[in-house]
Amino acid sequence: MSSVPPVVAVLGPDGPRIVAPDEPVVTVDDLGLTRGDGCFDSALVVDTSRSLRCDDAASKGAPHHRVRDLEEHLDRLDRSAAALDLEGPPRAAWVALVDAAVDAWSTPGDASIKLVLTRGREWGPEAGPTAFAVVTARPAGRPQRGGGGSDPLRVVTLTKGHPSDAFVDAPWLLGGVKTLSYVVNVAAQREGRRRGADDVIFTTTDGFALDGPMAGLLVVREGRWLSTPTGGTGILASVSVATILDAAAADGHESAFELVRVEHLHDADGVWLVASSRGPTPVGEIDGRPVRVDPDLVSQAARYAGF
Amino acid sequence: MSSVPPVVAVLGPDGPRIVAPDEPVVTVDDLGLTRGDGCFDSALVVDTSRSLRCDDAASKGAPHHRVRDLEEHLDRLDRSAAALDLEGPPRAAWVALVDAAVDAWSTPGDASIKLVLTRGREWGPEAGPTAFAVVTARPAGRPQRGGGGSDPLRVVTLTKGHPSDAFVDAPWLLGGVKTLSYVVNVAAQREGRRRGADDVIFTTTDGFALDGPMAGLLVVREGRWLSTPTGGTGILASVSVATILDAAAADGHESAFELVRVEHLHDADGVWLVASSRGPTPVGEIDGRPVRVDPDLVSQAARYAGF
Repeated sequence: MSSVPPVVAVLGPDGPRIVAPDEPVVTVDDLGLTRGDGCFDSALVVDTSRSLRCDDAASKGAPHHRVRDLEEHLDRLDRSAAALDLEGPPRAAWVALVDAAVDAWSTPGDASIKLVLTRGREWGPEAGPTAFAVVTARPAGRPQRGGGGSDPLRVVTLTKGHPSDAFVDAPWLLGGVKTLSYVVNVAAQREGRRRGADDVIFTTTDGFALDGPMAGLLVVREGRWLSTPTGGTGILASVSVATILDAAAADGHESAFELVRVEHLHDADGVWLVASSRGPTPVGEIDGRPVRVDPDLVSQAARYAGF
Repeated sequence: MSSVPPVVAVLGPDGPRIVAPDEPVVTVDDLGLTRGDGCFDSALVVDTSRSLRCDDAASKGAPHHRVRDLEEHLDRLDRSAAALDLEGPPRAAWVALVDAAVDAWSTPGDASIKLVLTRGREWGPEAGPTAFAVVTARPAGRPQRGGGGSDPLRVVTLTKGHPSDAFVDAPWLLGGVKTLSYVVNVAAQREGRRRGADDVIFTTTDGFALDGPMAGLLVVREGRWLSTPTGGTGILASVSVATILDAAAADGHESAFELVRVEHLHDADGVWLVASSRGPTPVGEIDGRPVRVDPDLVSQAARYAGF
């Protein structure tokens, strides 16, 4: 936790309200708390005074900060809410909430924003869903835009316990939905640390790589830029992975969403875990065996991601 | 939601504190809220002034109410917390919290109590885990102790997307842990209702019945009293199911934890969904096909459960 206090904005009946980080906001019957019944999304908050990507220059919120790919993240949040049969606030209310949070954030440099939507209270009075936004400083040690990346990750593979087609025709399993029920992801990262690793790549019972507990997976193999398909795999669509694959394709590379066998991670040209708030982070070791880290490819992936 | 207001007791540094049901208690960085990172347990609160089971007469909390099988539920909560690497309050603090909540509950008749433990706040100050207890009136229409049960349930089967041994050697998948990450259970019940059913029985990809989203499964078949084994199946150990199987065995019946194939639910002598707060509720229909409901067996199961 950085020493910079977060900014918390809560959506009330009269619009966004900035609350102190220590102020209790949620009652004990909030279904987000008691059932993990809600969804969230996270995005990078770019300090446009040190912009590296030209479209960041068009500031929408505060004078110095704007949320990168806000529309894409709000679209994904809408899809998550729809999958949960949860009617959240209208787009304008989300944008007002984001604007209020980002306006109140004055720390120089990039930051992260998290948007949270829960089903709201189980008991009356009927107040509707709970919605809030939190802006936090990016943890030290994470790669910064233009900062040349960080040390490659040591990763272990852990089974997710299901085959790669488990989510076909089973929408109640909430594949692809970024829900608040994230405890298995947290436990898997804890297991990874227990094994001396920095992070985890989930695998299927039929031998394919899925994604990380809190990140998408990018693999470059035989010159092709690849990531795990959504749908039957249950993985979350990653905004940043899509950005990278699009940029790779535009740059003349073959790119595709296709399953990669776990053993093919080891003969890949490069493997990354990718999250909006930290960009593509190269993987240097999987299950104790080294994975190729090519500095040129690492720079290329960072550039494609706008980092 | 019943019109009787719930009682909420929160564990603070100075012990339990009763708070108004509408008072916000949790900050937006509580990991129970943002990650579903925590666990809970639910139990029946018995009004001992209308006790049906002799051991209920020994009141531990308020003059009229006590929590049935409190030690078993606190044991299970401890196991859930341990699986999450979460050090919760000591037993004495839980008991004090439960006593405070039950003491403050004055509505005649049985009630439900829910105990919740989260990993606490992500940001400082370090306050440790969040713990609270909530007592609520039992929803109308649920079977009451001695009340002869309710209408048989119409149930649909929904796949859980994994084989029956998915959780073997994969503790990070948190099989058997009653976590706050319950959104798939909620979504499955919603899907069940969408299909015109009252509840759901989860199934494995290899064709076995698991449990309900919020209940254990009891099957009587060829005179044997059966329930799904824990462990590799990932299902939660049900305190009430264990009580029933123990009582059945003591009564001279064969009882076992063994997997039941989905098609064998249809030629069973009886099928029940079982939860501490509602007792065993008979299933009368699965996937549109009738299931045998034998009134004598229904009474027997209720008696074994102490209902």
